[in-house]
Amino acid sequence: MARKIILDSDPGHDDAVAILLALGNPNIELLGVTTVGGNQSLEKVTYNARAVLQKAHATDIPVHAGCDRPLVRKQEVAASIHGETGLDGVDLPEPTRPLDEGHAVNWLIETIMSAEPQSITLVPTGPLTNIAMAVRMEPRIVDRVKEVVLMGGGYHTGNWSAVSEFNIKVDPEAAHIVFNESWPVTMVGLDLTHQALCTPDVQQRIDGLGTDLAHFVSGLMDFFRKTYQDNQDFIDPPVHDPCTVAYLIDPSVVQTRRCPVDVELQGDLTLGMTVADLRGPEPSAEECHTQVATKLDFEKFWDLVTDAIERIG
Amino acid sequence: MARKIILDSDPGHDDAVAILLALGNPNIELLGVTTVGGNQSLEKVTYNARAVLQKAHATDIPVHAGCDRPLVRKQEVAASIHGETGLDGVDLPEPTRPLDEGHAVNWLIETIMSAEPQSITLVPTGPLTNIAMAVRMEPRIVDRVKEVVLMGGGYHTGNWSAVSEFNIKVDPEAAHIVFNESWPVTMVGLDLTHQALCTPDVQQRIDGLGTDLAHFVSGLMDFFRKTYQDNQDFIDPPVHDPCTVAYLIDPSVVQTRRCPVDVELQGDLTLGMTVADLRGPEPSAEECHTQVATKLDFEKFWDLVTDAIERIG
Amino acid sequence: MARKIILDSDPGHDDAVAILLALGNPNIELLGVTTVGGNQSLEKVTYNARAVLQKAHATDIPVHAGCDRPLVRKQEVAASIHGETGLDGVDLPEPTRPLDEGHAVNWLIETIMSAEPQSITLVPTGPLTNIAMAVRMEPRIVDRVKEVVLMGGGYHTGNWSAVSEFNIKVDPEAAHIVFNESWPVTMVGLDLTHQALCTPDVQQRIDGLGTDLAHFVSGLMDFFRKTYQDNQDFIDPPVHDPCTVAYLIDPSVVQTRRCPVDVELQGDLTLGMTVADLRGPEPSAEECHTQVATKLDFEKFWDLVTDAIERIG
Amino acid sequence: MARKIILDSDPGHDDAVAILLALGNPNIELLGVTTVGGNQSLEKVTYNARAVLQKAHATDIPVHAGCDRPLVRKQEVAASIHGETGLDGVDLPEPTRPLDEGHAVNWLIETIMSAEPQSITLVPTGPLTNIAMAVRMEPRIVDRVKEVVLMGGGYHTGNWSAVSEFNIKVDPEAAHIVFNESWPVTMVGLDLTHQALCTPDVQQRIDGLGTDLAHFVSGLMDFFRKTYQDNQDFIDPPVHDPCTVAYLIDPSVVQTRRCPVDVELQGDLTLGMTVADLRGPEPSAEECHTQVATKLDFEKFWDLVTDAIERIG
Repeated sequence: MARKIILDSDPGHDDAVAILLALGNPNIELLGVTTVGGNQSLEKVTYNARAVLQKAHATDIPVHAGCDRPLVRKQEVAASIHGETGLDGVDLPEPTRPLDEGHAVNWLIETIMSAEPQSITLVPTGPLTNIAMAVRMEPRIVDRVKEVVLMGGGYHTGNWSAVSEFNIKVDPEAAHIVFNESWPVTMVGLDLTHQALCTPDVQQRIDGLGTDLAHFVSGLMDFFRKTYQDNQDFIDPPVHDPCTVAYLIDPSVVQTRRCPVDVELQGDLTLGMTVADLRGPEPSAEECHTQVATKLDFEKFWDLVTDAIERIG
Repeated sequence: MARKIILDSDPGHDDAVAILLALGNPNIELLGVTTVGGNQSLEKVTYNARAVLQKAHATDIPVHAGCDRPLVRKQEVAASIHGETGLDGVDLPEPTRPLDEGHAVNWLIETIMSAEPQSITLVPTGPLTNIAMAVRMEPRIVDRVKEVVLMGGGYHTGNWSAVSEFNIKVDPEAAHIVFNESWPVTMVGLDLTHQALCTPDVQQRIDGLGTDLAHFVSGLMDFFRKTYQDNQDFIDPPVHDPCTVAYLIDPSVVQTRRCPVDVELQGDLTLGMTVADLRGPEPSAEECHTQVATKLDFEKFWDLVTDAIERIG
Repeated sequence: MARKIILDSDPGHDDAVAILLALGNPNIELLGVTTVGGNQSLEKVTYNARAVLQKAHATDIPVHAGCDRPLVRKQEVAASIHGETGLDGVDLPEPTRPLDEGHAVNWLIETIMSAEPQSITLVPTGPLTNIAMAVRMEPRIVDRVKEVVLMGGGYHTGNWSAVSEFNIKVDPEAAHIVFNESWPVTMVGLDLTHQALCTPDVQQRIDGLGTDLAHFVSGLMDFFRKTYQDNQDFIDPPVHDPCTVAYLIDPSVVQTRRCPVDVELQGDLTLGMTVADLRGPEPSAEECHTQVATKLDFEKFWDLVTDAIERIG
Repeated sequence: MARKIILDSDPGHDDAVAILLALGNPNIELLGVTTVGGNQSLEKVTYNARAVLQKAHATDIPVHAGCDRPLVRKQEVAASIHGETGLDGVDLPEPTRPLDEGHAVNWLIETIMSAEPQSITLVPTGPLTNIAMAVRMEPRIVDRVKEVVLMGGGYHTGNWSAVSEFNIKVDPEAAHIVFNESWPVTMVGLDLTHQALCTPDVQQRIDGLGTDLAHFVSGLMDFFRKTYQDNQDFIDPPVHDPCTVAYLIDPSVVQTRRCPVDVELQGDLTLGMTVADLRGPEPSAEECHTQVATKLDFEKFWDLVTDAIERIG
C-alpha cells in the first residue's frame, strides 16, 4: 500500500524534484501540498508549487498556503540559491487549478484528525512554521501522525552559518517545537543531502528521458548548479528535498542513526543548529524518537528520481 | 457607542473581575471570551470563564478555547496565586451554555476579519499565545484590529522574576510577536496594576452590595489576598486584569506614557522582561505604536468595578 | 580618621571631579589612581588622570595603568560624551610625575594585601576590568577590602541602552565578577547620578571660587553640558562619578536600598543591565551584600564638591 | 634546536603524560609548568604537577600556580574522570622543590616578554584562564609568542556536552579570548585526541619498559581506562594532552586543517562549543590564524610517548 504523505514545502528547485518524486512513485500517495514562506515569499512558493503540479499533470492535488513568515524572527529568503521567483531558470505553466481555500495549518489539522490514526506521514522540506503552528493549535496531531521525515539541519554540516542549515536557521523556534514533540522525527540533513549531488552524468540521464518534464528538471538543475557554484563552493548542486521522499519509498536508500536532536535557540554562533548527541551507543526507538540520516545510496536515489520523472511522462 | 472588545484570558481571580467589569459597564460590548493556558491549564481556565459568565447571567457570550501551552517554552502555571482550580476560594456554578466550537485562534481571525475595520479591541489578560498565533495565521488582523490593550509586563516591576511579569515570562515569544506588530499596544503592566489594590475598604464596599455576585467577588478577593500575602509580600491583592477594561471605559482612569517596548527573549536574568525605553522626550503616536500605563485613579477604578457588579445584579 | 580609597577610573569629565573631591576632602585619603580603558583609550585616560592630579598639585599620588580593553567584548569608548581626548574642553597641564611602574592589577593586589585588613575601599568609576582581573588573580582581596563603592549601572535607568549603563555595558563580564564576589558593594548608578546635575547655578558657584582649578572644572562642565544636551537629551550634565566619593565622605548625602543585584550577560535587549530585585522587604546586610543608591542630597553634594575645589586651591 | 614550550596544565592523567613527553623528548625544552584550576582544584593540580616532575627527576623545572577558577562561570571539576586527587590511581612522590613564587600569569608575561620574540610556544592543556588573563594584562605577548597549541574543544565531538569539551566548556570566556587573539592557534581537540587511545597493547608496551616511571604511567592508565569506561562509554581511554606536544615534536604525527574557529558563549545547548567553519576551500595561513587537528598517526604518537618515558628512565 502506498505511503500517504503531505509535502509541506517552499519550492524551490529541490522541492520541485521532491514533488515530482512523490507524484511519480507508486509507493507514495501525495495527499496534498502545503506551502510556507522560506526559499522565497509565500506568494511565490505557493505559485511555484501549483505550477510544478500543473507541469506534472497533477491538478488533482490540493495546495494550501500557510504561514508567510517565521514564528518569531524576521523573514530571510534564499534568493541567492533559488533566484527572485524561487524557481528561476525555467518557464512555469499557468496553473489551471485555483489555489485551494483554507489555511494550510487548518487543512493539516483537519486532514490528519479525520484520517485513520498513524496513516499520514508529514514531509516538511521548508521552514517548520506550518507544522509548529499546527501542533500548537491541535496537540493531538502528534499522536495521529505516523512520522515526520523532514529536510533540514545537519549534525556536522551547515550552509546558512558554519553549523546551521537554512530551513532550521530561519525559523529555529518552529524547528524547536517540531523536534521536541514526541512523534518520530527523521532529520534528513545536510550530512545526507550533500551526498545527493546532481552530477553532469545524473543530469544527462534525466535530460535524456527526452520529455518536456525531463527538460524542465534539467533546466532547474542548470540554474541550481550555477548558484551553488557561485555561493556555496559546490561543483554540483545537492538536491536536498527529494531525499526525504526517497527514504519513505525505500529506507535502504538512506541510512540513519538514532540520537537525541534538539535545536539551539540562544547561540550567538550556533543559532538554529540541530544539536545531535552522538556520544555513546545508539539508543533504541523507545529511548529516542529522533534519528538523523547519515549515508545515501547515490545510485538508488537517482534511479528513483529518474524513474519518477519518466513515469509522470 | 459601546467599545467592542474580545477578552482573551485565563481566569484567574482578577480575570474574573475583568469579565464582570466588561459585562456590567454599558460602554463595553463584550463580543466573546477566548481562553488560553496560563494561570492554570486550558481546561480549567476555560471552565472558569464559562462559570463566571454563568454567574453573571451572561450565557449569550461565546467562549472559545485556545492554546493549551506556550509557543516554545514549557508550561508554567500560577497555582501559588490562583490555586489548583485557577479560581480557588469560591463555588462555581455549572455552565448551562456548552463550550463553543472552533478554536479560539480561528474564531479570533474570523470575528476580526468579518467585522468592520478598526471596530474591535483585543484585551488579552493572560499569556499572549492565542493572539500571537492568530497574527501569524492571518497577518491582516493587525490592520483590522482597533488596538490591543493588554495586562502584562512592567517597565520597572516584576513578579515572576525580578524584572518580568507572569503573562509575558511564561510565553515570551508570543509577547515578542504581539509587541512587534504595528498595531497600537497599550501595556497595562505591574507598574499600574500594583496600584489597583483591593483594600479591606474596597472589598467591604463590594461585599456591601449584598448580591450573590458581590459575595462571590468578595470570596475571590479573600483567597487572592491570602496568596498574595503568602507569596508576594503584599498586604492587599493587586487586581490586575480589570485595569485594561477600565482604561477602555474611561481613559482618564489610567495615565499612559508612550515609549518603545520590546520583549527580551535571550536574557538569563531578564527573560520575558518588557524592555521600555523611557529615555528622552515622549514620542508621538506616529513615531511609536506602544505605550505603557503609569498611574491609576484608584477611586475611579473601584467605582467602575463596584458599579459593574451592582449593574449585573 | 580619613577613609583610605583607591580610585579606579577612566577620566572622563566626571571622573576628574571625583579625583578632585577625593583630593580636596579631609575625610578621604587617596592612596592612588588606577586607570582602565573606558571613556577613552587606556593611553588617553591614563594621561588625563595624571594631568588632573598635576592640575591639583597632587604629584604625590601614584597612577598605575591597567587593562586597555574589556575582558571579553570588543572595546567601545564614550567619545560622544567625553570627546576625542576623553577630557575635551580644557587645557591639560603636562604631568611632571612619570607614570608609575607596575600594572594596575598587580599594584591593586599588592596594596590591598599589604595593608591592614578592611582598611581600603575600592572606588571604581569606569569599566570594572581591573577590579575583576585583580579578584581572579588574588581571590583573597575580597576579604581584605573594606567595601566597593562603584559608579555604574542603574536599577531603573540606562544610558548606553534602554536599561544598561556605559561602565557595565562595555564590560559586563567584569561587572558580573565584581557583583558576584562576597564583598560589600554599593552601586551608585544612574538612578542616583542623574540627580547630580551641574545646573548653571552650581557651575556659577564653582566658577565663582575664582581659582585656576575652579575655572578648569567650569570648563569641563561647559563641554559636558553640551555633549549631554546633544546626545542624551539632558539640559544639565549629570556628574556621576564624585557621587561615590561623596557617599564615602558623608553617607547622608546618598540614600541607599539594600537588594540583590546581578549583571545580565545574555540579553539581547538587556546585556549589561544591573538587575536589582526590589521585590519584598529590604534584606539585612547579613542577607545581602549589595545595595543601590537611590536619592541624592543635592545641596550637600555640591557643597562637598565646591568645598573640595576651594580647599585644593 | 629544541622547541621552547610552556605547559599550562591541570594534571590530570593525560596532562601527566604530556609533561613526561615534553621532558623526555630532546626536541622539546620545557621552560616551566603553570597550573590552573580545571580537572581538579588549583591546589591539587599544582601539587600533581610538582609530583609528576619529581617522579621524572625534573626538579629544575619551575612550577607557578595560576588561577583557581574560571573567569566568569562557577567552577566545575572533572572528578568523575580524574578522581578526587586529580591523579587517582597512583602514589605520588613528595616534591622536593618548593612551589615557585609568583603568580602563573605574571610569570608567563615576564618569561614571554623577556625571551626572544617568537621563541616560546604556549601549550595549554587545561582551561584557558591563565592564558586569557595574561593576554589581557599584557596584550603584547600575542605578538611575542610563537604559537599556541592547545588541547581543547572539538569541531565534531563533545564530551562535557553533546558538542562541547571540558576545557573549553568550563571557561568559555577564557577560550573565546584565546581564540580571538591574532596569534597562530592550533586546536588539538577531541576529533584528534579520541584517536589517541591507550589500548592494552600500547599500555603493555609502556609497562614493559620495566622502569618505576613506566609502571607509574601504566597505573595512571588503569585508572583512566576505568573512569572512561564508566563515564564516557569508551573501551580504552583517550590520552588527550600529549597530542599537543607530539605535534610540536613532529608535525607529521598530527594532520591539521586550517579554518576559522570561535567559541560559543551564549548557547543553551552549545555553550563552550568550538565552532569551526569548515565550509568551502581551506584558507591560507595569512587568511586564517586558527587550525584544527584532524588525524593522528597512532603508531608514531605512541612511539614518541614510549620513547620519552624510556629516555627519562
